[in-house]
Amino acid sequence: MTSGRRDLTVARIAALAGVSAPTVSRVVNGQPGVAPATRERVEEVLREQGYRRPEVAPAAVLELVFHALESQWALEIIRGVEHAARAHGLAVLLTEMQGRLTPEKAWTEQILARRPTGVVAVFSELTVAQQSRLATQEIPLVVVDPTGEPLHETPSVGATNWTGGLSATRHLLGLGHRRIAAVGGPVRWPCCRARLDGHRAAMDAAGVPAELIREEVLYVEGGLRAARELLALPEPPSAIVCANDLQAMGVYRAAREAGVRVPEELSVVGFDDLDFAAWAGPPLTTVRQPLFRMGATAVDLVAELAAGRRPEEHRVELGTTLVVRESTGPLL
Amino acid sequence: MTSGRRDLTVARIAALAGVSAPTVSRVVNGQPGVAPATRERVEEVLREQGYRRPEVAPAAVLELVFHALESQWALEIIRGVEHAARAHGLAVLLTEMQGRLTPEKAWTEQILARRPTGVVAVFSELTVAQQSRLATQEIPLVVVDPTGEPLHETPSVGATNWTGGLSATRHLLGLGHRRIAAVGGPVRWPCCRARLDGHRAAMDAAGVPAELIREEVLYVEGGLRAARELLALPEPPSAIVCANDLQAMGVYRAAREAGVRVPEELSVVGFDDLDFAAWAGPPLTTVRQPLFRMGATAVDLVAELAAGRRPEEHRVELGTTLVVRESTGPLL
Repeated sequence: MTSGRRDLTVARIAALAGVSAPTVSRVVNGQPGVAPATRERVEEVLREQGYRRPEVAPAAVLELVFHALESQWALEIIRGVEHAARAHGLAVLLTEMQGRLTPEKAWTEQILARRPTGVVAVFSELTVAQQSRLATQEIPLVVVDPTGEPLHETPSVGATNWTGGLSATRHLLGLGHRRIAAVGGPVRWPCCRARLDGHRAAMDAAGVPAELIREEVLYVEGGLRAARELLALPEPPSAIVCANDLQAMGVYRAAREAGVRVPEELSVVGFDDLDFAAWAGPPLTTVRQPLFRMGATAVDLVAELAAGRRPEEHRVELGTTLVVRESTGPLL
Repeated sequence: MTSGRRDLTVARIAALAGVSAPTVSRVVNGQPGVAPATRERVEEVLREQGYRRPEVAPAAVLELVFHALESQWALEIIRGVEHAARAHGLAVLLTEMQGRLTPEKAWTEQILARRPTGVVAVFSELTVAQQSRLATQEIPLVVVDPTGEPLHETPSVGATNWTGGLSATRHLLGLGHRRIAAVGGPVRWPCCRARLDGHRAAMDAAGVPAELIREEVLYVEGGLRAARELLALPEPPSAIVCANDLQAMGVYRAAREAGVRVPEELSVVGFDDLDFAAWAGPPLTTVRQPLFRMGATAVDLVAELAAGRRPEEHRVELGTTLVVRESTGPLL
C-alpha cells in the first residue's frame, strides 16, 4: 500500500469490501469516523488479502535479567534501565529468574537466538560458560551488584557500599552509641561484605569492638530474626545497622514486640533508601543507593561496549549518601 | 558446526587457532578449563570465520506497556505478567511511557514492527487509532485498569473497586465513625470513580451524608494536600479513606504535622496493600488488590485471544479484601 500501487490496492480493497476508498484509508491508518461494522468488514478483507503493514526495522533489544523482582529496589533499577535504553534506542526485554541466581541453560539459548545488543544482569551469577557464550557472540554483558566474583573482565556497576557502611556506623558513634550491632547480608556477595567491612572500619577507628555481627537474608524476616536475638541478649545493643531497608523493617517489628522504643531505646539504620523508608514509623535513617542511576549506567556501559569502545572504568561505583531521619537518636 | 561437518569445522578452527580440537569444542560449548588467552584466540578465529551458533527460533514476545513505573504497585503487576508469560512461553518487552497516558505514535510503529503475540497496557489510554491498528494486525490488546472509557470490545482486567471502597467505609462506620472523609483519585478513571462510589454507597446505606470528598492525584502529595485541608476544618473528620496507599502515607504526614494521633484521633484506610503498608507507622489498614493476579490474568487473556478463542469475560474483576491493621480504631 505504498508508492505507485497504493491507489490501486486501496481501490481493490474498497471494491471487495463494498466501501469507499477513503474509508479503507481510514481503517488502514487507524483513524476514527468509521462505523464498527464497516471497520470490521474492511479489516476482514485486508486480512483475506494478506495485507501487512510496510516493514519497519525492529528496534534493537537490551536484555534485562533479574534474579527476582522484589521491592521497590528492583523497580528503581528497571526505571533507570528504561530511561537509558530509550536514549540509546533500545527496547527492554525483562526476564525474572524467580529467585534463581544462575539463569538456566535454556535462557542462554533464548538470549543468543534473540541477538540482543547487550545484556544487563542484576544481582545474578552467570556461569563462566554462560558468560563466555555471550562473549563468543560479541554480546556485551554488564552486571549490576554482582553476587559472585565476576570474571575480572565482566564490567559491573554498584554503589560505594564500603563507604556507605562506614558512614552509617560513624553516624551512630557520633550520637554516642558504642554497643552497635550490624545485621549483614550474605557476606559471599561483595556488596554485603563491603557494607560490613565499612562498619568494622568505623568501629575500629573509634576503638570500639565490633562483636555483634549477624549474617542474615536481605528480607524483613532476616532483620526480625537477628533483632529478636540481639534484643534478648543480657546486654542488648543500643543501635543496629542493617544491610538494607527491608531488614530494618524487621528490626522495627522485633522492637515493637519487645516493647523497645525507636529511637529512644534503639537506633536503627537501613540501606537503600526505598520510598517507604520515609513513610515508616518512625521515618528511617538510611544509606541511599542511587539505584536509578545504577541501572542507567549499566545500559550506558552496554552501549559503549556494543559500539566497540572500551569503557573508562570496568567497575563503576556510584556514591552512597547517609539520609538522617527519625530512627536514630543520641544514646540516652 | 552440526552433523557431518562438525569435526571438519572444529579441526579447521583448531588448526587456525593453533589449539586442539577438544579445546575448540570447550570454547564453543562455553565450558570452563580453557586459559583466558587461549579462549580469546579461539573466539577470535571463530569470529573471523563468521561462526554463528545454530539458529534457535526466537521466543514470541508480549509487549507490556506502563504509563509510569511507580511504587511497588507496578512491580506486582510486572511480576504477575512475568509469571504468566513464562507459562505461555512468551518473552516480556517492557516499555515505560514516562507518565504519558497515551503512547506516542512511534510506539505503535515499533509494536507493529515487532509483531508481538499481544499487548498488555497498564493504566493507559490508547487512542482509537492505536487500538484499531493493533486490531487490523490481529494483535490482541488487554488493558489493566483502563484510565479512559475503553472501546467496549477491548478486554480489560481490574479489581472490584466499588466493593473495595464500600468495605473500607463500612469498616469505619462499624467503628462508630460518622464524619468520614474520602480522598479520591481522578474520577475520570473508572477505578477511582468506582472506589468513591463504593464509599458513597456505604455512607448512604448508613444514612450519613458523604460530604467530605476530595479529588486528588494518586501520590503522597495528594493525600498530604487533602488531609492538611481536611484537618484544618472547623469540624475535621475522625476518619479518612484514601484511593491508594501512597495517599494514605500523605495523610499520615499531615496528621503528624498537625499533632493528630493515628488511630486515636484519626483513622486512616488505604487501597492496594503494597508491602510498605504493613511497615508504616502505624501499620496501615487497607483494601488489598490482587495486583500479581491482575497482571497474570491479563496475559492469560492475551493468550486466549492470540489462540483465536473468545474469552469468557471481556471485563475481568478480581476480588479486593479489607486488611485491618492498626491505623483504624473506634471513635473515641
